[in-house]
Amino acid sequence: MASIELLTVGTELLLGFTVDTNSAEIGRTLAAAGVSVARRTTVGDDAAAIRDAVSAALARSGIVLVTGGLGPTADDVTKKAVAELFQAPLEFHQSVWDALVARFTRMGRVPSPANRCQAEVPRGATVLPNRWGTAPGLWLEGSPGIVIMLPGVPHEMRNLLSHEVLPRLTSRASSGVVRSRAVRTWGVPESSLAEKLDGVEGDIAPLSLAYLPGINGVDLRLTAWDLPAAEADERLETGIQLLRDRIGDPVYGEDEDDLAALLLDEARRLGLSLATGESCTGGLLGGRITEIAGSSEVYLGGIVAYSNAAKVAELNVSAQLIVEHGAVSEQVARAMAHGATRVFGADAAMSITGIAGPGGGTAEKPVGLVFVASAFGGETTCTRYMFPGSRDDVRGRAAQAALFQLWRLLEGVSPPLG
Amino acid sequence: MASIELLTVGTELLLGFTVDTNSAEIGRTLAAAGVSVARRTTVGDDAAAIRDAVSAALARSGIVLVTGGLGPTADDVTKKAVAELFQAPLEFHQSVWDALVARFTRMGRVPSPANRCQAEVPRGATVLPNRWGTAPGLWLEGSPGIVIMLPGVPHEMRNLLSHEVLPRLTSRASSGVVRSRAVRTWGVPESSLAEKLDGVEGDIAPLSLAYLPGINGVDLRLTAWDLPAAEADERLETGIQLLRDRIGDPVYGEDEDDLAALLLDEARRLGLSLATGESCTGGLLGGRITEIAGSSEVYLGGIVAYSNAAKVAELNVSAQLIVEHGAVSEQVARAMAHGATRVFGADAAMSITGIAGPGGGTAEKPVGLVFVASAFGGETTCTRYMFPGSRDDVRGRAAQAALFQLWRLLEGVSPPLG
Repeated sequence: MASIELLTVGTELLLGFTVDTNSAEIGRTLAAAGVSVARRTTVGDDAAAIRDAVSAALARSGIVLVTGGLGPTADDVTKKAVAELFQAPLEFHQSVWDALVARFTRMGRVPSPANRCQAEVPRGATVLPNRWGTAPGLWLEGSPGIVIMLPGVPHEMRNLLSHEVLPRLTSRASSGVVRSRAVRTWGVPESSLAEKLDGVEGDIAPLSLAYLPGINGVDLRLTAWDLPAAEADERLETGIQLLRDRIGDPVYGEDEDDLAALLLDEARRLGLSLATGESCTGGLLGGRITEIAGSSEVYLGGIVAYSNAAKVAELNVSAQLIVEHGAVSEQVARAMAHGATRVFGADAAMSITGIAGPGGGTAEKPVGLVFVASAFGGETTCTRYMFPGSRDDVRGRAAQAALFQLWRLLEGVSPPLG
Repeated sequence: MASIELLTVGTELLLGFTVDTNSAEIGRTLAAAGVSVARRTTVGDDAAAIRDAVSAALARSGIVLVTGGLGPTADDVTKKAVAELFQAPLEFHQSVWDALVARFTRMGRVPSPANRCQAEVPRGATVLPNRWGTAPGLWLEGSPGIVIMLPGVPHEMRNLLSHEVLPRLTSRASSGVVRSRAVRTWGVPESSLAEKLDGVEGDIAPLSLAYLPGINGVDLRLTAWDLPAAEADERLETGIQLLRDRIGDPVYGEDEDDLAALLLDEARRLGLSLATGESCTGGLLGGRITEIAGSSEVYLGGIVAYSNAAKVAELNVSAQLIVEHGAVSEQVARAMAHGATRVFGADAAMSITGIAGPGGGTAEKPVGLVFVASAFGGETTCTRYMFPGSRDDVRGRAAQAALFQLWRLLEGVSPPLG
């Protein structure tokens, strides 16, 4: 693969007041297009440090992408430092200034004198027009090498990268790209997946396989390293199918698939309405569902029954059941799911009751114990989980478990006839 | 300030499959202790690149902290690369191996032969015991300079940094530290805060002031640059008080303060129980509250009334009111808050109804329109908001607005006598 270096500029980054998310995004975007980042450097808002880092990067790699330090304030020194290195004087560009004034005018504002420096361009540089902000990108090519300068504001960087930089880099990109895809699973530990996939590495080679466990399950990432784009995509597709076949039921989706969106799709397909009854998750499950635009077509609502009295009064759970089995029990989970369908007049519902911790656990019912139930078609299904991790972890896993359970249930249902 | 360089190792970082959050945390931790990061470099899992980057960092700064590449697999080459640079052979340490075996045994596992390399230590290096994982940290001092190696797993890195590295660095730290504190505000745009704070820079100098707008309001960060620790803390405290006085009501807290926790504290102080009634936030508000451990002492539960029928049936909102004013209206918001207190028998409640988008907006009631109401002591309070941003933004801001409103209301209430 062709390679490039990345330099991010900002004292705030070194001090850790800002987390550098741009670098990862640039790395992924470039790799998918066939250009790898060979090295990443961060320096402060200091002209000498920037000059030194750009110079070293060009000596190693011939081309460097610099982000940050293009704003209008005194600590924005990237352009000046690079211009010095190229011995290219800064020249005022009327067209850049006009675009900047027009942008301010549209927002009902007037540029300050400090903004004028944003219209200065090192002699010989190509201006990469920034329709998303005030500082244009710059492409400077000379005897030291190629320097591409982009603003550090994430959405400006992202747009300039895809609209202005990538098309210009394509000619230098090698035929090989790095692309990756994922299969998403729920409910099976990493070690069990590894057993199911024993020996698969040989079948998917030259793709690599990585296990990425998280709150929402274990993702399995396949990566094609330095293959022609068409071959990479084809091998990844074959690999994804192979993983799906080998793993089976725990697979719920691919890449960016979200269980809440998948569940809403199934409900829509079947013409069903949904409701929720939550205890320890306290609304997180409803929050996951309503995060999806258009969920109001399907989701009627939910009860957060945090106290036992609320479970009885709002979800029609019998007080006797709570006394007999405790609020965290299979019986109460089933009754909550059933209650949620009745209360909202919904076709299907999910419920969660558990002990998120850190307090409240006992020897018999420890922190992490969660019952997840679904009600649909007059029947209830319940699963008992022991989740590891913090309060946030337990709650997040419980919400995902509920979405998975009902999604799997509905996914096997045929749509009503005619 | 004394300074150090930081080198993070990982091909996954360069490709952007992993976001480097360690670097920011290390930057903050070191700066607060009087050691600044002069430069940050990331290279792939490549011995030559690591050796080259360590060597260059030592030439510039004399000391470098390296994270990552200490695991048991073939692509973990950091230790080998640094050992070569120092011409220090790797030696097997029985005590490191014994600790590793003991750790595996506690977890009911057996180390694999691959783990043996994790017990190899460059001759002359100090082992920094890792009680949180398998790879120990290493401190290597020699003619090239000082290299500190830490594992890249965040919680292992964090613990080794604070328990093993910081105490050793203190002797080299200068008297100056970089520390920062924040005042958190809600409900006022950045520009209005800037007007209220006009000229404050002179009063707080040499502290700097930054405006950090986000979903949960605007934070104002004060930073002390390179001051003696005691002076930095004193100036920051004075500065925080000055900002509080100048801004007044919109201030809800400092530093890591969270409105849900503050609201629960107020409710606990007054002996009040809480409930929620949510429409467009779909459970997020309940989620914010129940994120706080111990919330069950105060929070009884909530209704997610996403459909109009649920607002009527579950929150006792009159159907007539919805027909007359629409579900997104001040009248319905007030009725939802009142209904939530009644339904749960709670002393106080919050409600939210609005249009989160992207669909559902009209000229009269556009996307972003949200009514937030509180009910307490027989009365209701309601605020109308027009929130900018995406669906997630609108929902997040609405939850924060509700927490702020009821917190402010309760905060002014005297506790019941005797």
